[in-house]
Amino acid sequence: MNDHTALLNRIRQVSALAPFNQWMDLRVEHAEAGQVILRLDWRDDFAQYNGHLHAALIGGLIDTACGFAAGTVAGNVTASQFSVRCLRPAVARTFRVTGRVVKAGKRQVFASATLGDWDDENGEPFAVGDAVLVPLPERAG
Amino acid sequence: MNDHTALLNRIRQVSALAPFNQWMDLRVEHAEAGQVILRLDWRDDFAQYNGHLHAALIGGLIDTACGFAAGTVAGNVTASQFSVRCLRPAVARTFRVTGRVVKAGKRQVFASATLGDWDDENGEPFAVGDAVLVPLPERAG
Amino acid sequence: MNDHTALLNRIRQVSALAPFNQWMDLRVEHAEAGQVILRLDWRDDFAQYNGHLHAALIGGLIDTACGFAAGTVAGNVTASQFSVRCLRPAVARTFRVTGRVVKAGKRQVFASATLGDWDDENGEPFAVGDAVLVPLPERAG
Amino acid sequence: MNDHTALLNRIRQVSALAPFNQWMDLRVEHAEAGQVILRLDWRDDFAQYNGHLHAALIGGLIDTACGFAAGTVAGNVTASQFSVRCLRPAVARTFRVTGRVVKAGKRQVFASATLGDWDDENGEPFAVGDAVLVPLPERAG
Repeated sequence: MNDHTALLNRIRQVSALAPFNQWMDLRVEHAEAGQVILRLDWRDDFAQYNGHLHAALIGGLIDTACGFAAGTVAGNVTASQFSVRCLRPAVARTFRVTGRVVKAGKRQVFASATLGDWDDENGEPFAVGDAVLVPLPERAG
Repeated sequence: MNDHTALLNRIRQVSALAPFNQWMDLRVEHAEAGQVILRLDWRDDFAQYNGHLHAALIGGLIDTACGFAAGTVAGNVTASQFSVRCLRPAVARTFRVTGRVVKAGKRQVFASATLGDWDDENGEPFAVGDAVLVPLPERAG
Repeated sequence: MNDHTALLNRIRQVSALAPFNQWMDLRVEHAEAGQVILRLDWRDDFAQYNGHLHAALIGGLIDTACGFAAGTVAGNVTASQFSVRCLRPAVARTFRVTGRVVKAGKRQVFASATLGDWDDENGEPFAVGDAVLVPLPERAG
Repeated sequence: MNDHTALLNRIRQVSALAPFNQWMDLRVEHAEAGQVILRLDWRDDFAQYNGHLHAALIGGLIDTACGFAAGTVAGNVTASQFSVRCLRPAVARTFRVTGRVVKAGKRQVFASATLGDWDDENGEPFAVGDAVLVPLPERAG
């Protein structure tokens, strides 16, 4: 098992521990040091009042991708702050969320994430955002 | 029916149109010009990996409270930006989310929100945040 | 010398070490545990292209007030993140900036600040903002 | 005079109208549709208390680069919101600030900016940030 596979399995295990991620059926598709790619298939109960992806899902995907990206380099982390810019209505059959570490310090990890259409990888993102993550003391998983 | 009741009913109708709000069983408890109070009862599928409220729910509640508060003064709005500061782990039997308009302009409405414990109204919040909302052209719905 | 005076003197000493604060002629008017009030008199070289207070000054005042407020409870700190909402054009003879600690943790201090008109204390603010501050190891200075 | 030169001259004229930009001696080095590059030479009066670039300058450069980038595609704009992540102490002989439009809508322009060392273009940035800009009605310059 190579490093990418080990990292991917570890992030998947963390995600599997989160009941809300299970409810969304969030998939961790890729993980390497400093980056993750998540995938989410549309479901009608993800909608806000006019049928677009609800801000909760947008923010949750951005924050989760930032956290998992940070987790590839810093172990367990918790978000202390996140922000989201909603660039256009989020409507797709499948969403792609890419999280990247911007700077990993000892006390804080800065990460950013992009939410787009899985089937239009170079299209304009629906939303972009960033998070500040704080590494947690070691813990059992 | 007085103004508060009419406003409350209108915000409840908007919320009822959002499948994700229905899934959460989000309650609009109070609405007046510039302010709303929302209520959410804990459910286990709201959790992240260590049992606290998932960032998606935290961000979704903050954004929704900001949007509904803006809606009391500006009709239909859409969030263009929101940010969340997570002050401490969000664990409660019932959550209270208060949204307030900070400044209502023609092209943008600024709002902020606080997420706390319903049963400890004066306790330290779990999270605070803010949003920039853009009023939408008139529409049915 | 009571505690407030000692705290005020300490914050003034920190501010005096910052050449940019000296250039602005920024005044620390009040300091207590968790809160500071700063004062800045208008000067024409503070302006952006149409005569309002430049975003650099707005952001610098917000960040400095957050940092000094954090400093009243956490010693020396450095900002890792700050954000500013510009609510209306900032035009006044004298500005008042109030910084408050929202939550002081061991690894991070959350603070917020409000920029308004010194001579219209209850008027609508020009800008509001917040910062995440990280306490520094002990140092001379 | 080609388009780039015309755009560069227009942005330089806007910058020249801002007394604070003049005080900083901020240079607009490059402008094309959707992107600008600014340059600032270190001066001792830019420092905060321990000799690094003051948050006012960091935030002001980020906001200005976002605003000028937006201005290349949307005419005159005003910032309604900006946020800054301070990744490491900002110390350099000369600073490079690159601003880019992320999304230009009719009612809002989203832009981001990076602050780095002019002489180490591929080095880790000192700070990154973003802004939401609102286009202004036409006006004389």
